[in-house]
Amino acid sequence: MASVLISRQFALSLQKNLRLSGPGFRYVSKAAPRTQDEFDYDGPSMKTAVPGPRSEELTKQLGQIQNVGAINFFCNYEESRGNYLVDVDGNRMLDIYTQISSIPIGYNHPALLKLMSNPNNLSTLVNRPALGILPPENFPEKLNESLVSVAPSGMTRVQTMACGSCSNENAFKAMFIWYRNKERGHNTPSEEDISSCMINQAPGCPELSILSFMGGFHGRTMGCLATTHSKAIHKLDVPSFDWPIAPFPRLQYPLEEFTRENAQEEARCLEEVEDLIVKWRQKGKPVAGIVIEPIQAEGGDNHATADFFRRLRDIARKHGCAFHVDEVQTGGGTTGKMWAHEHWGMEDPADIVSFSKKLLTGGYYHKDELQADKAYRIFNTWMGDPSKNLILSEVLNVIRRENLLEEVTRSGKALINGLYELQAQYPGILSRARGQGTFCAIDICDDETRNRILTTARDKGILLGGCGDRSIRFRPALIFKEYHVHLFLNIFNDVLAQLK
Amino acid sequence: MASVLISRQFALSLQKNLRLSGPGFRYVSKAAPRTQDEFDYDGPSMKTAVPGPRSEELTKQLGQIQNVGAINFFCNYEESRGNYLVDVDGNRMLDIYTQISSIPIGYNHPALLKLMSNPNNLSTLVNRPALGILPPENFPEKLNESLVSVAPSGMTRVQTMACGSCSNENAFKAMFIWYRNKERGHNTPSEEDISSCMINQAPGCPELSILSFMGGFHGRTMGCLATTHSKAIHKLDVPSFDWPIAPFPRLQYPLEEFTRENAQEEARCLEEVEDLIVKWRQKGKPVAGIVIEPIQAEGGDNHATADFFRRLRDIARKHGCAFHVDEVQTGGGTTGKMWAHEHWGMEDPADIVSFSKKLLTGGYYHKDELQADKAYRIFNTWMGDPSKNLILSEVLNVIRRENLLEEVTRSGKALINGLYELQAQYPGILSRARGQGTFCAIDICDDETRNRILTTARDKGILLGGCGDRSIRFRPALIFKEYHVHLFLNIFNDVLAQLK
Repeated sequence: MASVLISRQFALSLQKNLRLSGPGFRYVSKAAPRTQDEFDYDGPSMKTAVPGPRSEELTKQLGQIQNVGAINFFCNYEESRGNYLVDVDGNRMLDIYTQISSIPIGYNHPALLKLMSNPNNLSTLVNRPALGILPPENFPEKLNESLVSVAPSGMTRVQTMACGSCSNENAFKAMFIWYRNKERGHNTPSEEDISSCMINQAPGCPELSILSFMGGFHGRTMGCLATTHSKAIHKLDVPSFDWPIAPFPRLQYPLEEFTRENAQEEARCLEEVEDLIVKWRQKGKPVAGIVIEPIQAEGGDNHATADFFRRLRDIARKHGCAFHVDEVQTGGGTTGKMWAHEHWGMEDPADIVSFSKKLLTGGYYHKDELQADKAYRIFNTWMGDPSKNLILSEVLNVIRRENLLEEVTRSGKALINGLYELQAQYPGILSRARGQGTFCAIDICDDETRNRILTTARDKGILLGGCGDRSIRFRPALIFKEYHVHLFLNIFNDVLAQLK
Repeated sequence: MASVLISRQFALSLQKNLRLSGPGFRYVSKAAPRTQDEFDYDGPSMKTAVPGPRSEELTKQLGQIQNVGAINFFCNYEESRGNYLVDVDGNRMLDIYTQISSIPIGYNHPALLKLMSNPNNLSTLVNRPALGILPPENFPEKLNESLVSVAPSGMTRVQTMACGSCSNENAFKAMFIWYRNKERGHNTPSEEDISSCMINQAPGCPELSILSFMGGFHGRTMGCLATTHSKAIHKLDVPSFDWPIAPFPRLQYPLEEFTRENAQEEARCLEEVEDLIVKWRQKGKPVAGIVIEPIQAEGGDNHATADFFRRLRDIARKHGCAFHVDEVQTGGGTTGKMWAHEHWGMEDPADIVSFSKKLLTGGYYHKDELQADKAYRIFNTWMGDPSKNLILSEVLNVIRRENLLEEVTRSGKALINGLYELQAQYPGILSRARGQGTFCAIDICDDETRNRILTTARDKGILLGGCGDRSIRFRPALIFKEYHVHLFLNIFNDVLAQLK
């Protein structure tokens, strides 16, 4: 792996120079005075190439136990703070990937440390209940304080789950159950339903389908995986379902120059959705639900317009399919709103909204009619974890107290404007800068250059992630301020200048 | 719901009388002096019927947010201790169900409270990493101390996951990947594999199958659910895979009286397994793996002999199918051994062993050749939770320090002998007492009587669970001592006497 050894001195001088613009680069951080929180570090600090020797040693150790092909490096979470992730070799990096977008308010936030030190919460940490049968006394209250307080429009009901995949799997089941009851006209299964389902056969296990989109990612368990179409490595060798897959709009950028083309592209995709719904009904595998991300994340940060989603929602309604918006990666404030679908401006945006990652617990919201009609239809031993709801409650307090959604909107503007300018400056390397809030991405000329940029940036103390074939995705925590944006842009500019 | 109000005074006198045998009942607890741990309570104490008024009120509140059809009552986990679960109405019950068998060493174990109060562990609680890419420094060490230290024979590799279903889903994927690479003769997928898998089609998403057993339970996500055949309510209305389902032996009890019949029954089931493997190969859906529980738990505590499992393992080997032993409910010491499959006495018991529940984290062990050949094939954001590994490490320390596997063996003998005697005493009500360690069960004459017994026992301070059509399953924690067995047997005897 290509990596550059950066001396401590260089790192220090780098920090000092952050307020100066790079060659040909217009950012001057005077425009963004540093207002970072006390618990944040004041900049990256690199001591070794990454992964450093201690990480290499630990990777070897872990390699005795599991596949370590995806390991980046080992972390010192005790020393990590705010926007900075510290590794076991003492390197401190500005983290714009945040554990695949799953850290809401940075590392070791004082509010969370205080919460977890409170002896009153000890019992929640050591006694994990079977939530579906024996919930703790404060469970309704904690749900109301946390998930219910940020429920999407039109939804008052929420079911927690342990992770994103389980959330989507159970959301799919809820849609199948709802659809079959609708087909029956009542909730009582026939004797044939009951006996045939025990041996995996119709009508008890019906030939229903979920319509998904090419480029989508909804998880890796077998139901979810049948709706995931972002990379072959996720799906290869795993049996799947014959479910319809629609094209997701491939917008041309800059958007304002391609209004007509993009509208045509979205219309084409919507038409295909309707065709597929009809075709699969004729095949005897009716579409019970449509699942879609507000922004296709893993698949390459593919956006569509609010108009596209509004019309898709109408198509779902027209054909009697449930509409499931997967906000596992987009939810939790990173687009500047708690849920990305709020940008569509709809009162009835979805029938089901699933979440995980930044929400710290998995789960899904749903409209009343999507609640399973009987107990034990949507069920498992743990059904989430109250210790995660506890943390989420406090995270939401911090978001409100510190107006983090506004901060995200502000930082997001600075980030996207910075990316626009860099892309004007490096047209041979960068293109298609796009984003909502700090949920931004940019395309790199090719996969190899993308990976070189990621590695070089890391060695300069910036941690980024890739997505799609050749995109870089930005997934900072909600405490990523304008100051951090400019710090990042300056270093990124250096990385790009070095490439030339 | 039928329930009996037990006054505090009655509960106290009940406790005093525990050492006296019930009418016609031979248990005298002098034979089992109380040696319970300091943190345990000294007996049940009932103040209201269950669920009491506070539970009813909270159930109504939670009903605004989710389906509450399965809620038993709400718990006061702060006041719960050892083998005793305290509810929000102040009722204290001897817990022989332990959150669907998921509490290893009782409630609020002092060792765990101490561990979670240690400020050194705070960071693990508030910074959940993406384990597959950025593990914490102590991850290999914690894995070695915990899961690796109790690895099944022949396995040195373990992959953590968030729950039991995800563990089985990923274990299935590992078997499919292994099987396809074996078919190919190499690890390099073709262009056709890669392009076809993106649209859910063969050969990339091959028509492979997992053979499971009628009555088995392996989880409720869509891959797992295709191998679950315990109750229709789990499967109804959810699309599934056309995978082979073999009969699980239905043994006749008492075993010593039906040696020949049971051997024939097991031979019949094994023959069917081989037939199905051949049939599904001919169908073009070869069996990549066989999944089985050492004791079918949810399906009714169905046992088979060690000989059956040894021969089944041979059949898997002979036909080139991976052999996956699902120890989600049986693992963790409850059978008197860390893994139930140890009772088979084999050096090479399985290719994959999955776990969750009492292990506090999900995951699966596997033989070297079952490790996915490339990174990101078995992957998700969290891949488990280091805070759970931390607790597991300490639980294993307690198990070793307090010789809990020996205790389980001792308590298990007392429990099964007590059940044998009760069944002799109540032949019209009880039958088929069976078990391994404290993982015991008994059949009740019919479903209605079973549910009446569960409710009555609960109102007398004994918390039990059902399984199968008409069984009661016993799933105490590992700290359930002989003293508790006799306490239970005395109350259970009263419940049965009352039924007559």
